[in-house]
Amino acid sequence: MLLVSNETVMPLHGAALKAELALSGRPVDSFVLPDGEAHKNWQSLQSLLEFWAEAGADRHSVVLAFGGGVVGDLAGCAAALFMRGLRFIQIPTTLLAQVDSSVGGKTGINLPQGKNLVGSFHQPIAVWADQGLLRTLPEREFSAGLAEVIKYGPIADSEFFSWLEGAMPALRQRDSETLALAVRRSCEIKAAVVGADEREGGVRAILNFGHTFGHALEAGLGYGRLLHGEAVALGMVMAAELSHRHLGTDPALVSRLQALLRVAGLPIRAPRMDPALFMQLMRGDKKSVSGMVRYVLIPAIGQAELVAAPDEMALACVAAHSE
Amino acid sequence: MLLVSNETVMPLHGAALKAELALSGRPVDSFVLPDGEAHKNWQSLQSLLEFWAEAGADRHSVVLAFGGGVVGDLAGCAAALFMRGLRFIQIPTTLLAQVDSSVGGKTGINLPQGKNLVGSFHQPIAVWADQGLLRTLPEREFSAGLAEVIKYGPIADSEFFSWLEGAMPALRQRDSETLALAVRRSCEIKAAVVGADEREGGVRAILNFGHTFGHALEAGLGYGRLLHGEAVALGMVMAAELSHRHLGTDPALVSRLQALLRVAGLPIRAPRMDPALFMQLMRGDKKSVSGMVRYVLIPAIGQAELVAAPDEMALACVAAHSE
Repeated sequence: MLLVSNETVMPLHGAALKAELALSGRPVDSFVLPDGEAHKNWQSLQSLLEFWAEAGADRHSVVLAFGGGVVGDLAGCAAALFMRGLRFIQIPTTLLAQVDSSVGGKTGINLPQGKNLVGSFHQPIAVWADQGLLRTLPEREFSAGLAEVIKYGPIADSEFFSWLEGAMPALRQRDSETLALAVRRSCEIKAAVVGADEREGGVRAILNFGHTFGHALEAGLGYGRLLHGEAVALGMVMAAELSHRHLGTDPALVSRLQALLRVAGLPIRAPRMDPALFMQLMRGDKKSVSGMVRYVLIPAIGQAELVAAPDEMALACVAAHSE
Repeated sequence: MLLVSNETVMPLHGAALKAELALSGRPVDSFVLPDGEAHKNWQSLQSLLEFWAEAGADRHSVVLAFGGGVVGDLAGCAAALFMRGLRFIQIPTTLLAQVDSSVGGKTGINLPQGKNLVGSFHQPIAVWADQGLLRTLPEREFSAGLAEVIKYGPIADSEFFSWLEGAMPALRQRDSETLALAVRRSCEIKAAVVGADEREGGVRAILNFGHTFGHALEAGLGYGRLLHGEAVALGMVMAAELSHRHLGTDPALVSRLQALLRVAGLPIRAPRMDPALFMQLMRGDKKSVSGMVRYVLIPAIGQAELVAAPDEMALACVAAHSE
């Protein structure tokens, strides 16, 4: 078994996992990454693949990705590539990974030119989401994970959105029963969307609500300044605003979303960025077609559509929700 | 369109291809690799992916792999990875690529630890095999391609094997009609095998007849000393010998294969290699299961099976056909 983890998760939960794995009697080769998105890069991918080659991994080896989205994306990408594909299991240790990145089979790394520009569709054979692992998660990261939970309301389930408005205080207390319900519903929605469109020919794109603006914020401000979930929170406010201005959506979407994000401990006003840079970064988004930027917009709560919008209107929405 | 080629092919055939592509009116971004297997590596893959990112490639870009197996494997692997998968077209310019590597969707690069340890299954949307391109191929490379043509006889089609024994002189003259027949039958057999087993769970492995020995020769002697097809030719003789000793196959298989390879301009005696190293390299083969080496053997001409054999017997076959 090929265990991949990071320097934060291993000291907290590594011993417990290794004790479980020891019961199988199979040898475990561990590769421990430094923590952080900065390490989801070409060099880490190379080191991991060469480590497996040195360790004598073969086609029957199984990869265990034990960490957050960075570990899952990188280990999944390496699993997809090593000998043209090893089986892998996701054991997500962050809320973000439990409700989003561990489900759906997207793997990848960042290039200097952009996030997730290199990767693969490679489904895990299993995802083991243990909410007990979330107890050690820092407050800020937990809140960032809530952004992706909140996302599923506007795009697919208005009842879930209303339920979250009531359940948010208990979620922030990490009440395990409430948390399990939120994780389960999030995974159900994601699985249904991905099941309909694994390769993102169409409907899968709705999972990127808030991400076109969010990715531009992350890249423009420098990776690491905002957590991914924080950028998505800000991006969702901008995309809700654009839904209102471009499609005439009820402006209550914007105010309810802002209120819920605030209770979740998330930012709702973005740091200022140069508009020309902002637009250029959005144009580099994978959903673009021949330079035309398309956004996931919400005509009504619980529904999402991929819609092109004028640059000026998009930038006005950015400005309306920036410092 | 994203054209990938090498420094040998572009001066010979690049202008003609670009003139054709210009008719489409779509811009072409060209990436030209140095020639040779040594460049099918991690660094070339990185350079190519970053070049596409800089060039503003998007999901709708189409990759054209214009060259031999190295270009096809590398460009295909990059196409599989860029934005999690671009469409790509193979335009193979060597005989080896026309009858083998361009068909079947295997892509990959080498690691220092072994050949094709990193890669992906990514089918081209089309393969354009123009026998006119083969006229400029050096004699030695052309012969190396014939090794993979010859392979299809023993593993799948005894009539084709007999036909090749008669047709070989015309093939070596590069008679276009004879060549077209040989390429077509080779691709038919390969497509049928791959169609039955894309991911090499079982029958696809028979396409590796001669390759377990051959890969060990290539790696042990240092890549570049033998062409891949030459190593496969030597490996087929050894595998035929092992078929005879281990399964009692008619020894005429060995002598007919040797005669045909000789007429094709291929070597039939391997340079000497240390047996311990030879065995160690074969054990690293992707077909190995828990260190047990399995070989593609020929119980009768036109049939192939994956069979484990004792190390001593395999090494005796190596010795019998080495200097």
